[in-house]
Amino acid sequence: MYYTRDQIIPSIDLPTAIDLIEEGFALYSQGKTVVPPFGSLHFDHGEAHIKYGYIKDAEHYVVKIASNFSSSQGTMLLFSALTGTLQAVLNDEGYLTDLRTAAAGAVAARHLAPKQIRCIGIVGTGTQALFQLRLLQHVTNCRRVMVWGRSDKSLQAYTQHPDLSSFQITPTQDISQLTKACNLIVTTTPSSTPLLFASQIQSGTHITAVGADDLGKQELEPALFRNADLIAVDSREQCFAVGDCSHALKSGDLKKEKVHELGEIILNPALRRAHDQQITLADLTGVAIQDIQIATAVYRSLA
Amino acid sequence: MYYTRDQIIPSIDLPTAIDLIEEGFALYSQGKTVVPPFGSLHFDHGEAHIKYGYIKDAEHYVVKIASNFSSSQGTMLLFSALTGTLQAVLNDEGYLTDLRTAAAGAVAARHLAPKQIRCIGIVGTGTQALFQLRLLQHVTNCRRVMVWGRSDKSLQAYTQHPDLSSFQITPTQDISQLTKACNLIVTTTPSSTPLLFASQIQSGTHITAVGADDLGKQELEPALFRNADLIAVDSREQCFAVGDCSHALKSGDLKKEKVHELGEIILNPALRRAHDQQITLADLTGVAIQDIQIATAVYRSLA
Repeated sequence: MYYTRDQIIPSIDLPTAIDLIEEGFALYSQGKTVVPPFGSLHFDHGEAHIKYGYIKDAEHYVVKIASNFSSSQGTMLLFSALTGTLQAVLNDEGYLTDLRTAAAGAVAARHLAPKQIRCIGIVGTGTQALFQLRLLQHVTNCRRVMVWGRSDKSLQAYTQHPDLSSFQITPTQDISQLTKACNLIVTTTPSSTPLLFASQIQSGTHITAVGADDLGKQELEPALFRNADLIAVDSREQCFAVGDCSHALKSGDLKKEKVHELGEIILNPALRRAHDQQITLADLTGVAIQDIQIATAVYRSLA
Repeated sequence: MYYTRDQIIPSIDLPTAIDLIEEGFALYSQGKTVVPPFGSLHFDHGEAHIKYGYIKDAEHYVVKIASNFSSSQGTMLLFSALTGTLQAVLNDEGYLTDLRTAAAGAVAARHLAPKQIRCIGIVGTGTQALFQLRLLQHVTNCRRVMVWGRSDKSLQAYTQHPDLSSFQITPTQDISQLTKACNLIVTTTPSSTPLLFASQIQSGTHITAVGADDLGKQELEPALFRNADLIAVDSREQCFAVGDCSHALKSGDLKKEKVHELGEIILNPALRRAHDQQITLADLTGVAIQDIQIATAVYRSLA
């Protein structure tokens, strides 16, 4: 009934998480899920998101509460969709949110990144920067990485992290070095102003942006959306409201018709990158279907 | 950390619950709380509500998930408002929601009912019908009750319920008998069409309606709002959107200016009933501040 982080972590492996998230996006884009807009609570020193929903005809519905005060935190709840009874409290302390967010990045890379990845660029050095690389390990053979951050100390901690020992990681404080070296870039920061600019991005680059998941957050210059050949989102509704897309819509750099959901791209290979010189973008805000997929799998494994 | 219904029930007494809900409404109407619009999930055989919020500068925020499939269900979660850490899971299985809803009815009666209550009228025979009467016990000396329901069996079970043994309860299947006999009436049904009509209500009656808490539900004929001298709501925003008020606004029977929040009435006695011949209405849809107040008190008592 009540499971701790220590019980939850070994209950699901990373490749399985990626496959579940891929399946979840496909279900979502086919209209087989019920996922209302998420709720938020804003505090002086952080915010909490409440995400909830279910897969039609499935046994459970899931509610996830995640926050980012000094560190990220989270809890997922599974309820019976027939009786409303609480089935499980997964007090993962944010682990499953970090995992499913990074798994979405891996799904985006699997379907949108160029065939040959020269070097992976990670923007940011926090927990999500770590998770993204751990998950990318399962969808690319590239082991060359450049990481950008502002602090020497965080960069050092990242390059030496034991979970990333299979990668050769070069730190940089100059983001234009990263955009020159890398053709798969993942942005993972809570920035409120753009970090990546259109003029920096070379043709043949894929960018996944996961940091901007609420109003006021932004990692990509809106002009990047104008230059991109292909734009993917996890959820149209959500990205148009709160993601990096929302800024590009406001500035007129993005037309809604240009955007496909990741689930649509998964289901229809014709929507993927046409050749390796295209610039592709994935704007990921995090959708409850990810929480539903992960929570259900963990529950099945533990219960 | 994880508390069951059996641990929760003895942790809070009924008079304390009423006082906490009264305090909560006052805080809410003074703008001292953050309570976003609630979320809902609709299923074939029921629905779930997700309510959440916090009192400004308080230590916790609260998320409550409640549902009504074959029976009502619910769980409340307390999180630290400083770190986001989960502090307690109150798996009360709907008990605390039933309690706080009935406590709001008691608060409404305390501030709006006529001085002399001849007979209490309860519309409906379900769990909330039971809770309302148990809580009213603490705000009125009246022990005469008439209960309306459609089924003989449910009426019999209600009149003989051991928790209501201090009352003399008369069952009826004719609601006009109840409106004639009673000057404090509480409606507690999931009805989608009106049960009480303006022509039935005598002067000097107070009605509290707690059943209509989401789109499509309705217990009161809109014309009742036109005839009422005083109209109270737990939350303007919520009642105008989903309560019985919403129907009366649509039909033109209610002007928003006529409505006061219960918190405003608690804080300002001048807003209460002017004399015992007035008709007063309270439309209660259930606000997260009630969950916050109850969950915090239970947590303090148990932790």
